[in-house]
Amino acid sequence: MVPESINGEKQIPYKGVGKHRPEGRKYAPPIATCADYPESGDKRVASLKEALVKSGLKDGMTISTHHHFRNGDLIANQIFDIASELGVKDLRWFPSASFPCHEPMIKHLESGVINRIEGSMNGALGRFASEGNMKGVGVLRSHGGRYQAVQDGEVHIDIAVIAAPAADAFGNANGVHGDAACGLLGFALADSQFADRVIVATDNIVPFPCIPWQIHGNYVDYTVEVDKIGIPEKIISGTTRITKSPDRLRIAELTAEFCDQAGIIQDGFSFQSGAGGTSLAVGEFFANKLRERKIKARFVRAGSNKYLVKMLEEGLTDYILDGQTFDLEGVRSMRDYPNHVNTSPFTSYNYHGKGNFASMLDVVILGATEVDVNFNANVVTHSDGYLLHGIGGWQNCLFGKTVVLPLPLFRDRIPVIVDEVTTITGPGELIDVIITERGIAINPKRTDLIEKLKASDLPIVSIEDLKAEADKICGIPKKPEFTDKVIAVIKWVDGTVIDSVREVKK
Amino acid sequence: MVPESINGEKQIPYKGVGKHRPEGRKYAPPIATCADYPESGDKRVASLKEALVKSGLKDGMTISTHHHFRNGDLIANQIFDIASELGVKDLRWFPSASFPCHEPMIKHLESGVINRIEGSMNGALGRFASEGNMKGVGVLRSHGGRYQAVQDGEVHIDIAVIAAPAADAFGNANGVHGDAACGLLGFALADSQFADRVIVATDNIVPFPCIPWQIHGNYVDYTVEVDKIGIPEKIISGTTRITKSPDRLRIAELTAEFCDQAGIIQDGFSFQSGAGGTSLAVGEFFANKLRERKIKARFVRAGSNKYLVKMLEEGLTDYILDGQTFDLEGVRSMRDYPNHVNTSPFTSYNYHGKGNFASMLDVVILGATEVDVNFNANVVTHSDGYLLHGIGGWQNCLFGKTVVLPLPLFRDRIPVIVDEVTTITGPGELIDVIITERGIAINPKRTDLIEKLKASDLPIVSIEDLKAEADKICGIPKKPEFTDKVIAVIKWVDGTVIDSVREVKK
Repeated sequence: MVPESINGEKQIPYKGVGKHRPEGRKYAPPIATCADYPESGDKRVASLKEALVKSGLKDGMTISTHHHFRNGDLIANQIFDIASELGVKDLRWFPSASFPCHEPMIKHLESGVINRIEGSMNGALGRFASEGNMKGVGVLRSHGGRYQAVQDGEVHIDIAVIAAPAADAFGNANGVHGDAACGLLGFALADSQFADRVIVATDNIVPFPCIPWQIHGNYVDYTVEVDKIGIPEKIISGTTRITKSPDRLRIAELTAEFCDQAGIIQDGFSFQSGAGGTSLAVGEFFANKLRERKIKARFVRAGSNKYLVKMLEEGLTDYILDGQTFDLEGVRSMRDYPNHVNTSPFTSYNYHGKGNFASMLDVVILGATEVDVNFNANVVTHSDGYLLHGIGGWQNCLFGKTVVLPLPLFRDRIPVIVDEVTTITGPGELIDVIITERGIAINPKRTDLIEKLKASDLPIVSIEDLKAEADKICGIPKKPEFTDKVIAVIKWVDGTVIDSVREVKK
Repeated sequence: MVPESINGEKQIPYKGVGKHRPEGRKYAPPIATCADYPESGDKRVASLKEALVKSGLKDGMTISTHHHFRNGDLIANQIFDIASELGVKDLRWFPSASFPCHEPMIKHLESGVINRIEGSMNGALGRFASEGNMKGVGVLRSHGGRYQAVQDGEVHIDIAVIAAPAADAFGNANGVHGDAACGLLGFALADSQFADRVIVATDNIVPFPCIPWQIHGNYVDYTVEVDKIGIPEKIISGTTRITKSPDRLRIAELTAEFCDQAGIIQDGFSFQSGAGGTSLAVGEFFANKLRERKIKARFVRAGSNKYLVKMLEEGLTDYILDGQTFDLEGVRSMRDYPNHVNTSPFTSYNYHGKGNFASMLDVVILGATEVDVNFNANVVTHSDGYLLHGIGGWQNCLFGKTVVLPLPLFRDRIPVIVDEVTTITGPGELIDVIITERGIAINPKRTDLIEKLKASDLPIVSIEDLKAEADKICGIPKKPEFTDKVIAVIKWVDGTVIDSVREVKK
């Protein structure tokens, strides 16, 4: 059950995979003219405040930012501090994701400067929203869904602020050079293309042309030089290390073994695996199999990190198709190797395009907070009902040819497999295999996989059996209690609402 | 005097540089959905004919092609042969340029398969149009004006056919790999972004991903494998050799000397020079000066060729910003050097963007068929009134900081400087210097240049003096005679009509 309308806008409820047919046309930004821009190409203004004022910042606008700096972002908070100083109210913040460093936004949510956040709310912001404190209703979208929403005019961005590790005065920008190098700026692509006003902020101005021009200055209105756009050590994720937990290693090994027995690991195959400890271990097991057999992957979809860079350098894959670099090795590789390709939600994930490459992946390895016995999965709320995570590219990746969720059977004595997930983020029909340390469950829809693995020595069981085993060990935990108030909705990749999240009853 | 309406569409007359203010919004293509495209990413159909039929080819449609294969294109003629075979009539052909190899289109213009060509008509097609034989009225646009027209919805492309030297089955494509390598596909960018249906035809299919993806498969509907898309030896221009004519060399030397004395050749400067013999010589003189002084250009705007590649390799320029490669060295360099950057009319020339880089060039060296005493210039018609050339990027380049036209004082005993040009392609206020073998004329508007050069030993004279000298030598030639019938109009960079071309009276 999802609300018919949120934040005063009519919603379309989820209709099933591939069932909603978009009508109409893409959002059409106003036509600009060079006559309004300096012939010298120098669009610099003195401060972020001046850029925002010149962009016409006013009550009720939508302001977008990207999250390539992750927890090291220094720009987003400044925007809303300036808005507060100017007495502007009722803004919609439309980040591609928010992080713990954005906790200071709470005061702006409380004072009414920000009406709501449409984007993931990790940590403190999620807790704030879950406890019913955000004025407007949050909207969570996948990376592809965010591109789709902007492209389709579902979200109209008034002002996009794109913080860039390198930029020229014209506004061409990239993420590969400078102290705050984050690899690429793909999450800001839609913003640059469709926002009415685009501001590029940088602490590393270079003479024209700033190459590669991952963001085109031809879309940019103003450029601003600032002291520091991000904290380098927080930009790069510190957690990209292969797990040392024996249980997690067991899960990773089972995952690689399953893929192998299913015939997926072949010369020229492709895979996507995340940057968490278990996912990295899966990637390493894959790499070992490639090395042993002297074959290689055609491409690896990333979140890049040192392990994938090593694969590229070793010739174990032709390409890395990268949506965000997770460590400095990823940044270096993207800067130096033409086969380490920067991608965007447009190329990889946008469901309202003429195809995207998510569906071409042979296998994707994903996580979840909960999975139910119908293989529906949740990545946004915890079993206590709190909205603490974003969707990222997770929903988009479900279109991969085989979708595998390696998961611990329980976390902190809370079973991961449940009768019904707290929040449906992805429909079970797209999720093929659940791999736990105590057994592997194949979605009954994947009769081809069941057939292929029927003589396998792998511990293949039913998902009901997995659930029963977890319940036996942990007992059945108490369900969280909610009020009737919807605090956020979860969009599917096509812009329909697949589920809603309610206020947690304290 | 320009017509109020052509081909049934109302026109806006030219209002002056920077005077026309566009209203409204960019063209908004229909929203697509991945549900309509194969999950495998394989969009191949059996033939170009099948692709055209599936794209809904029918009477009155607009079909676009690009001209990166120049006189070696093998695809455009096939499209209209197929249309003819299917009995389709009244098409608008919207090429980024046409070449002598497209002479077979005349039969389709005669039979009514093609109503008109909107794009340059070089050679036989221009002659056909000039003699009043084309049913509709031709429309000539600059490269930037073509992007502008598509972006603004002035020209709605029903079907774009993009011939590509390398492509994958999804439609990602580039110009750097394959037998028909032409360097880049920038002239097809607008077509890919805004056409309702996009077909990629290739003779070199590669496994996904085709990298670099200069054209994104996410915009592509169908892909087609064909035997041969172009004739390599005709793709590469055979005429890119430095002139050996003493007069032309004298002009080139004067040009370089003028730029030097005007203080333009400095460390970090930028220039654009064409691929004709005189222009190449200018580039070489520039290179010599850089080499001698141990300084370098920040960027060279190209049309690339072996001379510019040598400059890049020698470190005489940081970047080549390239719109089309003119020889195999250009192709190789674009393929191998990250600092040899592929550009598009969007980044370089589109006047309806938030700036473009044409206005950042310190000096541009351009040609013309005629210049008048008010510095207005013509690049499309000859003094006999025939429309034989396209505009190319010429109008767009007029926005460079200093625009220099090195020209012979006369050609075949016809003076190049006239009282009034046959067709105004560019307004005199944007043209700064005319350099001939017998003297240099500076536009009186450029008081700064006149001041800088006042003590120069260069042969600086008035444009009236130059004209008088030519007239003395050649006599005043008879003006061409025209009927009242408008056979083509010339668009300015902002979509307004700056002049029209009439039927030549035989």
